[in-house]
Amino acid sequence: MVFPEKRMDHKETSGLKTYLKEKKAYVDAALQKYAPSPEGPASRLMEAMRYSLFADGKRLRPILCIAGCEAVDGAPETVLPVACALEFIHAYSLIHDDLPLMDDDDVRRGQPTNHKVFGDAVALLAGDALLTEAFHLMAGLDQASPIPAPRITQAIQLIAEAAGFDGMVGGQAVDILSEHKPADLDLVNYMHTHKTGALITASVVSGALLAGADDLRRKAMESYGSHIGLAFQISDDILDIEGDAKAMGKKTGADQVKGKMTYPAVLGMAAAKKIESELIRKAILALKPFDHKADPLRQIAQYIIERKR
Amino acid sequence: MVFPEKRMDHKETSGLKTYLKEKKAYVDAALQKYAPSPEGPASRLMEAMRYSLFADGKRLRPILCIAGCEAVDGAPETVLPVACALEFIHAYSLIHDDLPLMDDDDVRRGQPTNHKVFGDAVALLAGDALLTEAFHLMAGLDQASPIPAPRITQAIQLIAEAAGFDGMVGGQAVDILSEHKPADLDLVNYMHTHKTGALITASVVSGALLAGADDLRRKAMESYGSHIGLAFQISDDILDIEGDAKAMGKKTGADQVKGKMTYPAVLGMAAAKKIESELIRKAILALKPFDHKADPLRQIAQYIIERKR
Repeated sequence: MVFPEKRMDHKETSGLKTYLKEKKAYVDAALQKYAPSPEGPASRLMEAMRYSLFADGKRLRPILCIAGCEAVDGAPETVLPVACALEFIHAYSLIHDDLPLMDDDDVRRGQPTNHKVFGDAVALLAGDALLTEAFHLMAGLDQASPIPAPRITQAIQLIAEAAGFDGMVGGQAVDILSEHKPADLDLVNYMHTHKTGALITASVVSGALLAGADDLRRKAMESYGSHIGLAFQISDDILDIEGDAKAMGKKTGADQVKGKMTYPAVLGMAAAKKIESELIRKAILALKPFDHKADPLRQIAQYIIERKR
Repeated sequence: MVFPEKRMDHKETSGLKTYLKEKKAYVDAALQKYAPSPEGPASRLMEAMRYSLFADGKRLRPILCIAGCEAVDGAPETVLPVACALEFIHAYSLIHDDLPLMDDDDVRRGQPTNHKVFGDAVALLAGDALLTEAFHLMAGLDQASPIPAPRITQAIQLIAEAAGFDGMVGGQAVDILSEHKPADLDLVNYMHTHKTGALITASVVSGALLAGADDLRRKAMESYGSHIGLAFQISDDILDIEGDAKAMGKKTGADQVKGKMTYPAVLGMAAAKKIESELIRKAILALKPFDHKADPLRQIAQYIIERKR
């Protein structure tokens, strides 16, 4: 087990790196299977869906779903369609966020954004189609796995709630509506917990839920997820200021230019970093009911800070 | 039973009108219950969702879902969340279609379009949130109804497929991509069956499926739905040319201005009308396995033509 007080040692870091690499390859292979093939009159749409799906992503949400499943002794293959659906949802959200009428970003993950390649209309529709296909994938789990259907509908509900008006989309709306407004900790908190935190939490909780976690463990996962979710967003805000544009695959300093409300902007860099560390500590504490099978989750939490060093 | 060869008489028309009015009121009341209340920092987003949801719609898709359920002796209240989810999906599709980067329409159902009132970014997000909430509603059926969960996941799959890249979104993509291209019957056929037909078919089939329709009846509903779906779109194309702008609640003649591919544009008005009649005849024929409880579906088919007279 990794304790937050100490830095990860070389063995732990390389252990996690191997874990992340293996799981990413596992998810990438499944995405190849689940992504629609470009054919028929709408083939350009499928190309646009694939373009964003196969941009170089970390697959954090699918990996969290699988790690959540494994932490309660579930088999990763049983949750794979849901894990991939989470990446579909993440990809859709990036396409729509990047549109000129939203954040108007030209570069994402080191590549031209979807609308730069396919045009605004097809990009919008590719986002819509990715979101819709995510639910198709999740509902299709029923045929492919031994997981009981009521557990599947529960996971769909959980993920839809996290992605919708009271989750990711709500956070994005507040982000847009509060640009260039005076700094406000309540607002930035709402934005971050909703925009990024909700889907990250749903990723790890859905994995545990589908694998049959009891109430206690589900609540523990919720606590873990909400803490790393917020930490992850604060970490992104910090990287936007201190990070290297090339390593990030996007322009840095963009938040400030757009007058975005971020933790460093509201509280200052030192306080933001302190909150980040505290969140990671609490996230790891929340995993107390779990044995060594939750170690990847512990290491992922730690890694959110480590990646910036 | 209404036969397609004869016009609907006064009694039939007023019977259907009463049926549609009653069901619309029933759906409207449920939508009030399921629509999110505007509260918290993202309240503007919820307002935008409600604006389009409560614009003056016919509630055709929910009514078809309920009528499909009733045709196989199901109780309408058991499918109500799915019926409403179909209206959420329809509302989202209209918001995104109207955006400047898509069809760029200012007026819809006699009212300013969503982005004219809420701005492009919030309108986009309201569409995203409506689509997401549709799946939340459907998956939540599990708690509220006696319908077995595997049937619910099947309905979600069916509706997601109809709404996604191989359904409604695919049709919309082809619509956008083929503007101002030479007339092509295959393309216009693809567009119409996908853009409008798929979700209309899924509406009536999901209602029957959730109520426990066997394979034969489900296939019959599919045939009915696909025939009225295409007829409905052709009917809309005809109305865009011959209709009254005020009664339509939107500008007429817009398809021609935009160089949209329509049946009348490709085949001429007379042929388009002949195909429409033939589709209605086949739709009603498909309902042969059903007794009088499918009469509303028969009358709805007939009404697609009647409404233009």
